[in-house]
Amino acid sequence: MSARVLVVDDIPANVKLLEAKLGAEYFDVITATNGIDALAICERGEADIVLLDVMMPGMNGFEVCRRLKHSATTAHIPVVIVTALDQPSDRLKGLDAGADDFLTKPIDDTALFARVRSLVRLKSVTDELRQRALASRQLGIADPLAAAAAETGLNGRVLLIEDRPLIAERLTQALSAFHSIETETDAQAALARAAEGDFEIVLVSLDLQNYDGLRLCSQLRSLERTRNLSVLLLGEAEDKSRVLRGLEIGAHDFLVRPIDRNELLARARTLVRRKRFAERLRDSVQSSMEMAVMDQLTGLHNRRYLDSRLSALFDESALRARALSLLVLDVDRFKVVNDSWGHDAGDEVLREFADRIRACTRGIDLVARMGGEEIVVVLPDTALEAARAVAERIRERVEGEAFQIQRGQRAITVTVSIGVASRRAGDAGPVEMMKRADEAVYRAKAAGRNRVIVASAA
Amino acid sequence: MSARVLVVDDIPANVKLLEAKLGAEYFDVITATNGIDALAICERGEADIVLLDVMMPGMNGFEVCRRLKHSATTAHIPVVIVTALDQPSDRLKGLDAGADDFLTKPIDDTALFARVRSLVRLKSVTDELRQRALASRQLGIADPLAAAAAETGLNGRVLLIEDRPLIAERLTQALSAFHSIETETDAQAALARAAEGDFEIVLVSLDLQNYDGLRLCSQLRSLERTRNLSVLLLGEAEDKSRVLRGLEIGAHDFLVRPIDRNELLARARTLVRRKRFAERLRDSVQSSMEMAVMDQLTGLHNRRYLDSRLSALFDESALRARALSLLVLDVDRFKVVNDSWGHDAGDEVLREFADRIRACTRGIDLVARMGGEEIVVVLPDTALEAARAVAERIRERVEGEAFQIQRGQRAITVTVSIGVASRRAGDAGPVEMMKRADEAVYRAKAAGRNRVIVASAA
Ligand SMILES: [Mg+2]
Ligand SMILES: [Mg+2]
Repeated sequence: MSARVLVVDDIPANVKLLEAKLGAEYFDVITATNGIDALAICERGEADIVLLDVMMPGMNGFEVCRRLKHSATTAHIPVVIVTALDQPSDRLKGLDAGADDFLTKPIDDTALFARVRSLVRLKSVTDELRQRALASRQLGIADPLAAAAAETGLNGRVLLIEDRPLIAERLTQALSAFHSIETETDAQAALARAAEGDFEIVLVSLDLQNYDGLRLCSQLRSLERTRNLSVLLLGEAEDKSRVLRGLEIGAHDFLVRPIDRNELLARARTLVRRKRFAERLRDSVQSSMEMAVMDQLTGLHNRRYLDSRLSALFDESALRARALSLLVLDVDRFKVVNDSWGHDAGDEVLREFADRIRACTRGIDLVARMGGEEIVVVLPDTALEAARAVAERIRERVEGEAFQIQRGQRAITVTVSIGVASRRAGDAGPVEMMKRADEAVYRAKAAGRNRVIVASAA
Repeated sequence: MSARVLVVDDIPANVKLLEAKLGAEYFDVITATNGIDALAICERGEADIVLLDVMMPGMNGFEVCRRLKHSATTAHIPVVIVTALDQPSDRLKGLDAGADDFLTKPIDDTALFARVRSLVRLKSVTDELRQRALASRQLGIADPLAAAAAETGLNGRVLLIEDRPLIAERLTQALSAFHSIETETDAQAALARAAEGDFEIVLVSLDLQNYDGLRLCSQLRSLERTRNLSVLLLGEAEDKSRVLRGLEIGAHDFLVRPIDRNELLARARTLVRRKRFAERLRDSVQSSMEMAVMDQLTGLHNRRYLDSRLSALFDESALRARALSLLVLDVDRFKVVNDSWGHDAGDEVLREFADRIRACTRGIDLVARMGGEEIVVVLPDTALEAARAVAERIRERVEGEAFQIQRGQRAITVTVSIGVASRRAGDAGPVEMMKRADEAVYRAKAAGRNRVIVASAA
């Protein structure tokens, strides 16, 4: 998959070399010779991945990385730190700054392309999500990007798949300071636990006795219920080709033995952060969409949702010859509440009214606020008499106890008029049933309010 | 990237062979020996891609493919038809049935893996979108999947990049029966046109005189403004390795010369279909989110949107020391409209009321229905006197012409009371300004309605 790779290095020859290598592999290369320019390019959204030199005059690579990872606009861009010094301390500084990976000079081509391809592939999936989440930010619904950039990556839920007790013990000790970790020795059992458990990352040993770790990685990345987990491979240094193969299959990262404790912690943390970033984007898009069918004041469904669901509920009950009933509920003299005690008090009454209705209905019932002081309840599998009983229970519950307003400073009596109707065999659609319930509530009002009126069954 | 590959073939030896090849490449293989089983597996969402034999007893491969592509649940799954007969007519039947690609037996491993990897990679991106769109279907907001499955793939907007006039001419003739097609001979100019134009697919010749077609493909797939376009490569048969390389880079499909007219048409159509599928998913998620901040009845923004935007508008006006005003508008005696002419008439009045407000406000003004018959208008860069003038214009426009109700059968006079307030230097937030406007509209009602009352400027 092609991508725009930003190469940042203060030495022109280094830039040229990487540009040539990446260009030959058909990546689209952009270059910068200092941190300030690199930050500007990323802020403008022109790079898909950054290869970042450490030693640069002015702002060094760690600082550039830290800034990229702390900005909501750029935190999602993978950063690979490129350093001449293969010092664990340098690797750690990079990972602590939030880097996704690092490479040491002189650069090994295979490792370079494997890492860049893997990071680009993973990013292409979250990019689509990120675009939707950006839209929800523009709409003012939520700002998941800012929250995601502030994520620490600590307290992750980690599953370790390793069948050598001593090694598992050592890894567990290292990780448990910052994460909660469980170990599994059997590959098949591990797959089941990963699918059922609430893990965020999975550490897979490539040296299991009875199972190919790459196969396990492939399965984790394929199965519906595990494919969103982050996978970190643990392999032998001399097994580099299998480790790189793992990246192709979809592993997110790897470590080679002997495993440096601090590097393990840093990489685990990065993976937890990335996983949570994607989850936040998903949740944000999901909740933005849920808002579209919710009434903001009461937390009930709204009219849009009722409109879209009622026909289906009607058709289903007709098809299966099951009962279907509907209540229209209207708070009595609601205007008086607003005029006497203000709109805030009116809102308090509506919220409490919604809560009392919720308390009298089941999970399968559809409760929707139609706007104003009118609420509709759809009762599947419920015949007219049972629906009348539900309505009567709600009416009593509303009348029975005064409503607190002005934050508990005052209590007022509220009553409700309710019209009840059921699906008739002759109804062509839900409109007729709705109309009968509307007429019934109108009659309830005319008859003096605070009562339930049932439209005749046929 | 790993994935679940469903292999369908009635001959067990064929299944075994493909299973072994794909398993060795760490794909997760599922198998079926007939069409019915294959359809069931796909319906259950257990496959990411299908390799489908043509000649099977019972239901043949074309029919299985057709059914997969016509069901909203399975239309997004890539299907590769595997046939023993390398007949153009068979290839066409497959493509007509909606297949995404095909392979001929004996299967060439390089081609197999290149195709499967490419289709899986492309799918992984739309899968994320599809999950969000599925959620919007569950919420009853929209059903983009059904619409997408019904997409014909005709009338596509095609950009052809080919510098040999005769070849370009022949391709244009073939495609223009079903699509609108434009040709560009220069690669850089083509990139600019692809970014600015309204194209759906781009056909790239790998044999341009002055430019590497693979580089162009890479750029099209990298640049922000072109990366959602579908790319179809046109190459020489003996140049197979470059063509497969193109798939790795991100091309969606390819054709080798001499180009069969019907195959060209079929593949172009498939690409247009796939592109529109992704677009529909994007649009659907986007509009679901937009619904969350829209009032369904009037098409104005809703209270949620006002709540989320008002603080920002207030802070901005304070920061830049610019004026900010706010109108609270309340339809007079609205309850009488509902009680006399019914809720439908009330809705008609609110819609017309919203339209008249829209006609008196600018694009930068924020108009939101607060629920019931109350609408709030926020006027950036507008001082108190100018806001009063806007309010007065709206009041006159409402009173000036009777409102049509009952679908034009009747017309009634409607008036509105309006409270106006502006940001004061001492205001800590928008709440105080809003409160002053609320009090002003209350005084307008008390003073006899149908009037504008302005809260004092300080
Ligand atoms: Mg340097
Ligand atoms: Mg067969």
